[in-house]
Amino acid sequence: MAPVVNGRVLFNEIPQGYPEPGKTVVYDTSETIDPDTVPLNGGFLVKTLEVSVDPYMRGRMRDEKIESYAPAFKKGKPIDGYAIGKVIRSENPQVKVGDHVYGYLEFQNYSVRKDLTGLRIIENKEKLPWSLYVGVLGKTAYMAWKEYAQAKKGETVFVSAAAGPVGSFVIQLAKMDGLKTIGTAGSDEKVEFLKEIGTDVIFNYKTTKPRDVLLKEGGIDIQGKYPDVSIRSYWDNVGGETLDNALEASKVNARFIECGMISGYNTGFNTPLPNIIQIVARSIKLYGFIVFRIEHMYNDEFYKVVPPLVASGKIKYKEDVTNGLDKVGDVILAVQKGLNKGKAVVHVADD
Amino acid sequence: MAPVVNGRVLFNEIPQGYPEPGKTVVYDTSETIDPDTVPLNGGFLVKTLEVSVDPYMRGRMRDEKIESYAPAFKKGKPIDGYAIGKVIRSENPQVKVGDHVYGYLEFQNYSVRKDLTGLRIIENKEKLPWSLYVGVLGKTAYMAWKEYAQAKKGETVFVSAAAGPVGSFVIQLAKMDGLKTIGTAGSDEKVEFLKEIGTDVIFNYKTTKPRDVLLKEGGIDIQGKYPDVSIRSYWDNVGGETLDNALEASKVNARFIECGMISGYNTGFNTPLPNIIQIVARSIKLYGFIVFRIEHMYNDEFYKVVPPLVASGKIKYKEDVTNGLDKVGDVILAVQKGLNKGKAVVHVADD
Repeated sequence: MAPVVNGRVLFNEIPQGYPEPGKTVVYDTSETIDPDTVPLNGGFLVKTLEVSVDPYMRGRMRDEKIESYAPAFKKGKPIDGYAIGKVIRSENPQVKVGDHVYGYLEFQNYSVRKDLTGLRIIENKEKLPWSLYVGVLGKTAYMAWKEYAQAKKGETVFVSAAAGPVGSFVIQLAKMDGLKTIGTAGSDEKVEFLKEIGTDVIFNYKTTKPRDVLLKEGGIDIQGKYPDVSIRSYWDNVGGETLDNALEASKVNARFIECGMISGYNTGFNTPLPNIIQIVARSIKLYGFIVFRIEHMYNDEFYKVVPPLVASGKIKYKEDVTNGLDKVGDVILAVQKGLNKGKAVVHVADD
Repeated sequence: MAPVVNGRVLFNEIPQGYPEPGKTVVYDTSETIDPDTVPLNGGFLVKTLEVSVDPYMRGRMRDEKIESYAPAFKKGKPIDGYAIGKVIRSENPQVKVGDHVYGYLEFQNYSVRKDLTGLRIIENKEKLPWSLYVGVLGKTAYMAWKEYAQAKKGETVFVSAAAGPVGSFVIQLAKMDGLKTIGTAGSDEKVEFLKEIGTDVIFNYKTTKPRDVLLKEGGIDIQGKYPDVSIRSYWDNVGGETLDNALEASKVNARFIECGMISGYNTGFNTPLPNIIQIVARSIKLYGFIVFRIEHMYNDEFYKVVPPLVASGKIKYKEDVTNGLDKVGDVILAVQKGLNKGKAVVHVADD
């Protein structure tokens, strides 16, 4: 095989506000690679199949000097993220040609890796499309629901960004646990998907005030002296005013699962939270989490339980697949603006 | 005994901003009572000895239609709060003349009670001054520290309003558990008291920026990829900017014990919290609590363990005692402004 272009998505510039396609990241075709001859030095060669574009990536577009949970992207280097790749050559006895690996890969066509650090070989007995392994089979929803929800039948959970890949999985897990679900999303199409997955109360936050729905659906049931309002748990993907509304409508001893706060990623976290005092007044517990800090506890269970649920159709999902690494910049922006119509995946190569 | 004045502290007007002595509550002497002949109807007569004035009372000065964890004060009626009283007549076989009761009493010289609902007979084997039972022997610090702190030797805890009755007890509990303590207060005198009780790092938030101290004392110890900064737990009495600073300086998996947010009680909770995203990024857990929701689990332990600790001098405390129910309005304002020099107690009558 002759040398081929190793297309790469390079981090180019820290954005002010929203990321800009063609400026924040650029697609570069200046590097070539010969897959048959590139030295492996005892490692293996991975061909990238699918990459995941996620809200948290915005936080990585920052000055390298600022530390945070996920490392800053490096200027002039390929960005990386969750991906599925296929092993096409190997000198590592633990890895066979034809194996599929899941984990952080650089967003480029080919990568040489030394060992499986940060990667996991995926069996895929159910023969699911590989894109699902960076989508509905992302671990965030399942693992944090198990870890923090303490779900009890009959309780109510509110989920923001509920039509997204994490939110829609949470809604379905909550339904399986017998909870009443309230979900919000920002388009008619997303509202439609929330219906499909059986969400009990659905509203479009662009046309309806979350506060109105939450206080009404909670029903402010005053038992004795304390306002026994609705929300027993809140899965927060957005933060900001919606978080404040949820605090206002929450029950005593409510649990808030803090998964993300996309409302502030591009414009800052300066929305006032006048109901923050309810954390004290209603004995609310907030659980912030990042999935990589809990996944070691749930990986085995996850890969045993969830792929069959998806294969059987018991967990529904929606993907928004874009073709080609050259489109990553556009997809990054779409995800920050909530314009993706399902889990944003970029398809890089066929299996 | 002839009828005597039954002085009462009546709620008069909902304050805008800070409460105003003589307007928010008024001291009323229009009611008389004959302690020897007032009908008990099977109950008992309590003479009020000591009453507690606390920050949370501001939240009770609101429109009765707004529900919250502590009931609103009723206009024209006596306010109530934690107090110690002595039983001076009784027709209730469970209560003897000479018993001392702790719990919510109306702020007036004499009260007739039917039974012990909401009250507890205090033995006081250690013969401690009765005022301590509404002060250092308040349960908030001890019970919530036991319930939420998960203290581990060598960790660092930051305590705001650290010279107050709750904060100073927390500092001493943390020292007993082997923690490094950082405490902040708003006057030289309070800073002096923090030295007396052995606080490791002390600063006056009126002359030093909390953020500077917290980031420095934490030392931002970057281990590997993640900023391993200082605060493993934060006992929050103030909320607002200090809470934001603590979020910025907190460690991964930090625990925040949300006891109160006095910075917002009189002026509203509108301070932006730009570091709220750290709840997610650093997997921080916040535990809001109100002591009456957890005290049933700790009452027996508390009365066994804590009075001897205080009697032996192992737990130091500072009281700010004012004489006379007619001064309650002034003390309420002082507490909201942080002008009290120790636990604010109003001494009503000698034992």
